[in-house]
Amino acid sequence: MVEWQTLAKEKRESVIGLIPKAWLLPSPVPPATEQRDVTGKYIQQFLSPAEIEITETDAVGIVKNTISAKWKARDVAEAFCHRAALAHQMVNCLHEIFFDAAIADAQALDEYYAKHGKPIGPLHGLPVSLKDQFHVKDVETTMGYVGWIGTFEGKKGTNKEKVFESEMVRELRNLGAILYCKTSVPHTLMAGETVNNIIGYTWNPKNRNLACGGSSGGEGALIGLKGSPVGFGTDIGGSIRIPAAFNGLYGIRPSSGRLPYEGMANSMDGQNSILSVVGPIATSVGALKLVIKGLLEQQPWLHDPLVAEIPWRDEQEQAVLDIVKGSGGGQLAFGISKGDGIVNCQPPVRRAIDIVVKTAEKLGHKVFEWAPPSHKRCLEIAFKTWIYDGGADVHAAFALSGEPMASQITSTYGTLKDEYTASQIAANNVAKRAYQKEYMEYWNSTAELTGTGRPIDAVIAPLAPFAAARPDMAKFGSGTLKAKRVMPGLSTWVNMVDYTSAVLPVTLVDKSIDVVDEGYKPLNDQDEKVFLAYDPELYDRAHVAVQIVGRRLQEEKILTITEILGDALGKHVV
Amino acid sequence: MVEWQTLAKEKRESVIGLIPKAWLLPSPVPPATEQRDVTGKYIQQFLSPAEIEITETDAVGIVKNTISAKWKARDVAEAFCHRAALAHQMVNCLHEIFFDAAIADAQALDEYYAKHGKPIGPLHGLPVSLKDQFHVKDVETTMGYVGWIGTFEGKKGTNKEKVFESEMVRELRNLGAILYCKTSVPHTLMAGETVNNIIGYTWNPKNRNLACGGSSGGEGALIGLKGSPVGFGTDIGGSIRIPAAFNGLYGIRPSSGRLPYEGMANSMDGQNSILSVVGPIATSVGALKLVIKGLLEQQPWLHDPLVAEIPWRDEQEQAVLDIVKGSGGGQLAFGISKGDGIVNCQPPVRRAIDIVVKTAEKLGHKVFEWAPPSHKRCLEIAFKTWIYDGGADVHAAFALSGEPMASQITSTYGTLKDEYTASQIAANNVAKRAYQKEYMEYWNSTAELTGTGRPIDAVIAPLAPFAAARPDMAKFGSGTLKAKRVMPGLSTWVNMVDYTSAVLPVTLVDKSIDVVDEGYKPLNDQDEKVFLAYDPELYDRAHVAVQIVGRRLQEEKILTITEILGDALGKHVV
Repeated sequence: MVEWQTLAKEKRESVIGLIPKAWLLPSPVPPATEQRDVTGKYIQQFLSPAEIEITETDAVGIVKNTISAKWKARDVAEAFCHRAALAHQMVNCLHEIFFDAAIADAQALDEYYAKHGKPIGPLHGLPVSLKDQFHVKDVETTMGYVGWIGTFEGKKGTNKEKVFESEMVRELRNLGAILYCKTSVPHTLMAGETVNNIIGYTWNPKNRNLACGGSSGGEGALIGLKGSPVGFGTDIGGSIRIPAAFNGLYGIRPSSGRLPYEGMANSMDGQNSILSVVGPIATSVGALKLVIKGLLEQQPWLHDPLVAEIPWRDEQEQAVLDIVKGSGGGQLAFGISKGDGIVNCQPPVRRAIDIVVKTAEKLGHKVFEWAPPSHKRCLEIAFKTWIYDGGADVHAAFALSGEPMASQITSTYGTLKDEYTASQIAANNVAKRAYQKEYMEYWNSTAELTGTGRPIDAVIAPLAPFAAARPDMAKFGSGTLKAKRVMPGLSTWVNMVDYTSAVLPVTLVDKSIDVVDEGYKPLNDQDEKVFLAYDPELYDRAHVAVQIVGRRLQEEKILTITEILGDALGKHVV
Repeated sequence: MVEWQTLAKEKRESVIGLIPKAWLLPSPVPPATEQRDVTGKYIQQFLSPAEIEITETDAVGIVKNTISAKWKARDVAEAFCHRAALAHQMVNCLHEIFFDAAIADAQALDEYYAKHGKPIGPLHGLPVSLKDQFHVKDVETTMGYVGWIGTFEGKKGTNKEKVFESEMVRELRNLGAILYCKTSVPHTLMAGETVNNIIGYTWNPKNRNLACGGSSGGEGALIGLKGSPVGFGTDIGGSIRIPAAFNGLYGIRPSSGRLPYEGMANSMDGQNSILSVVGPIATSVGALKLVIKGLLEQQPWLHDPLVAEIPWRDEQEQAVLDIVKGSGGGQLAFGISKGDGIVNCQPPVRRAIDIVVKTAEKLGHKVFEWAPPSHKRCLEIAFKTWIYDGGADVHAAFALSGEPMASQITSTYGTLKDEYTASQIAANNVAKRAYQKEYMEYWNSTAELTGTGRPIDAVIAPLAPFAAARPDMAKFGSGTLKAKRVMPGLSTWVNMVDYTSAVLPVTLVDKSIDVVDEGYKPLNDQDEKVFLAYDPELYDRAHVAVQIVGRRLQEEKILTITEILGDALGKHVV
C-alpha cells in the first residue's frame, strides 16, 4: 500500500474506532440490492424507544424540551451520538467523531441548568452537526484530503492544529448547541456527490443506489437518517441545496454576507466573484429559523468582516403572514421555472413541480411562467469563477499526499490549466454584475403581471434534473461525455445572482407514476444523458424536492413561504 | 497641435461655451499670489443678494424653502448654475455643464408644485452636482480621458452615448433633485489631486497655491465655492474624504453596499477586492443625511445588485442621541489616532486633532489612544489591489487618444507591469480578510477599556498629513522620491477595512500658530518629504479637517457623531 493509502486507512479506522463498541452494528449492512432504504424502521431497530423519540423530534421540539428541562441535554446528546454512529456505519457520512466531548459539554449544560435554573441559550442542548470545513477544538479538519491529515489546512506547524475554532463554532457554543461530529464532503468540495479517498463514497440512505448529494453530502445523509436534527453546510453552486433535496430535507442557501463563514476551511479561498456561503439543513423550517435567528442574535457582523449588519427581521416574516391571512390563505405570486432550456427534468422532478404549483394554486396563490435572462449566459460566467486559478489550489492539495482525484472531480480539475489574469477576472466580474442587474430588473418587471401590487414573491424551481444523482452523474463544471452542466446549472444560477433559496421536500419517486417518457426527443447531448439516466425501478422511493428562490437577503420571507408550502404539503416536519 | 490636444481644447472650450455670456467673468481671475482665496466675498461680488442667499443656504434649508414653496425651484437652479459657472472660471472644476436642462427641469417642478400643491419628493428642487463618473442623459462622460470624448466609456457605437443614465441619477430625479453639472476628476481617478488633459488642473479655491484634492476634486472645489449645496463623489482610497477635507466640507465614505454605484463609469471596473463606493459631500451633515435617507427610500437594493437591503435606521441615530442626552452631553468613547507610524502630520493637522479631542472631552466624552493592527501591512494589501492588472485598463484608456499621463499618475501607472494571476489575487483577498478580522477584534477588545459598556464608538483620525496637498504631492501608490504613501495611507486603511468615515471640518491653517517644528527628526524619507512640504506662509488660511471613522455600515451613527462634534465646533453649516 502506498503512503496515502495507509494514511487514509488509518484515518478511516481511527474514526470508526471512536464509536463505542455497544454502538457497532452486529453485522455489515446488506447491499443496496437487499436493503435499499436504511432510514426509518431499518435504523430504528438499533435504537431504544427513548432514543427514537428524541432523534425523531425536530430541533424546535428538542429545544422546547431541553429549555423546559423535560429532557436532559445529556440524554439528547447520547441519543444523537448513537444514531449518528449508526448512520456512519450505514452510509459513510462522518469525517470526525467527538462524542466524548459532546457528552461532557451536555453534562455541563445540565449542571448549568441545575445551578441557575435556566438554559444557557436558545439552542440549549441542541445537537448540531457540521460539514468538515468547520474547525473545532481538539478535532481535525481534512475536508476529505489525505494530505490534510495531521495539518491545519495542509500546513504543519501553524499552532492552529486542533486548537483554532471557526467563528460560527464559537457562536453555536454560546447559544448552547452541542457539537459532536463533522460530516463528509467530496474532496475539493466541487461536486454534487460525496466521495474522497479517506471515507470513500457516501450513499443516499433513502435509496442506496443513489448519491447523497454534495458537497454537504454527509450532512444530507446524516440528517436524512435523523442522526442530526440540524447541521451546517456550505453552498457555492448548490452544495447545501443538493444534499437537502436528495435526502428529503429542508435547507437554505442564504445570500452571501448573512451568516458567518469566518475561519472555515475552503477550496480556492480568496476567489471572491462568487462566494461560498454557509447555511443550515434540517428536518423542519422551524429548525432553520431557530438556528439562523440564534446566530444573528450573536451579532456575527462584529466578528466576521464579510457579514452585513442585518438582524433577523420579524417584520419581513410577518408581512408574508399578513398577506396570506388577509386573503384567506393565498395571494402570493410565484414564478414557475421548469428547467433552464439546457436540460429538462426527469419525470419525478416534473411531478414535484406540478404538486407544488397545484398546492399553491389551491391555497389561492397566483402562478406565472418564469422567463428570466439566459441561464446559459449565467452559467458561463459562474463556471469561470471556479477555474480562475486553473486548478492550482486543488492540485496543490492533492500533491500533498499524492492521492488521486475522484472521477467526479477530474472533469473540471483533472488537467492543470492557465490561470486567469486580473483583467480576465475583472471582465468576468463586470459580466456577472451586468447579468445580476438584468435579472433583478426582470424580477422588478413582474410587478406589472402579478396583480398583487408586488413583483413575484418567490420562484418555484427544480434544483437538479433528477431526484438524486446516480453515481458519477453529479459532476460540476465542464468535462468529457458532454456531462457538463448536467446538474449544477439548475442550482448555480442562484449563486450567480446571490439570491436566497430554500429547499422544499415534496414527494418520493413512484415507479408506477413516474414512468419513462417514451419517444422523448432530447434537447442536446447533455439532456440526452439526463433522459437516459432515469430508471423508475432504480429511482423508486427516492426523495424529490424543489427550491423556493427569493431575492437577495430575503431569508425571512423565503423561509416563511417555504414553511407555508411545506405545511400545505403535509410536511411540517420531515 | 496633435490630435489629442485639439480634441481636448475643443472639449474644454465647448464646456466654457455653455456658460451664458452674462455669467462670464469680466476679466481673468488674478493669480494666486494676488488672490489666494476666491471663496466668500470674492465670488460673492459676481452674484446678486438673492443668489447669495440661496447658494449660501445648506441643502436642508433649500428643501425646506422649496417644499414650503417659499422658493421656486427655478430660482434655486439658476442661482446655483450661475455660481457653478463662476466657480469653474475660477478653479476649473467642471467637466460638463447642462444648465439649460436643469432650468427646464426646475421649471417643470415648479409647474408640478403649482398643479398638485405639493413637492415631487424630499429633494424637490435641490441642485445636486455629480462627479464625472455618473452618466446623465444628453451629457457626455469623459472621466478626464481625451480618448473618451464622443464615446461611451471609450467605446463607440454602443447606443448608450448620451442616452444611458446611472442608477443613482434615476433615483435622484425621482426624489426631485436638479442635476446641472458634472465635476472634474484626475484622469484614472487614482490621485488625491485633480488634473487631466482636458480641463488642466483644479485648484483649491480657499488657497489657490494648493490642490483641491481628488479624485472627487471638482466636487470639493465646487461645493467649497458654494457652487453646489451637495454633490456625489466616489472613494476607493480617500477620493471623497480628501476633497471634502481640503475644502472644509462634510463628506462621507459609506461602506460598500450601502449606496448604488450601478451604471457608473469607473477605472479598473471589475476589481472587486476593494470596491470604490459612492457618497455625498456637502456644507452640512444634515445635507448628507438628507440625500442618503432619500436614496435609501428609493430602495436601491432593488436596482443595484451590490446594494444590501439596509434602510436608513432612525434607531441607530437615536441610540447615539440617547447616550449623549442620558449623560448630559457626553459619554461617547473615541479612539484617537494621530498618525500611522509611517508619516507624522504637519502642525495644522496635529492642531486639528487636538481641537477635536479637547472638544470631545469638554462635552464629557472619553478618549483613548488608538493602537490598531499595523497600517503598513494594511496598506501593502490595499495598494496591491490598485495594480492587479498592471495598469492595463489605464494604459488602454490613454492609448485611445495618445495623450500623456499626468505626473500624479505616472508614479503608479507609468510603466505597464505584469498582471496578477488568480492565485495572487486570491492570496491578497485572504490577507485582506485576515487583516479585517484582526482589526475588528481589536475594535471589539476596546469594550474592556472604555467603561461605557461598549467598545469605542468612533475613531478620530487624520486623513492626510497635510491640510491640503501642494501640487504633485497627492500621489497614490508607489513611486520615485520615496513619495509612496505620503498621502493615501491615512485615508486608505478605511477602505481596506470597509468602514464608514465622515469628514469633519475643523479649522483653518494659522501661520502664527502652526509654525514649523524646528529640529524635527523625520521617521523616514517619506516622512521627511511631508515635513519639508510644510510652509506656514504658503498654507495660511487653508482648511484643516479630520475624519470620524466608524465600523462597517455604521453611517447613521457616524453622521450623528460627526454632527454633534461639528455643532460643538460651531460648524453646523460650513
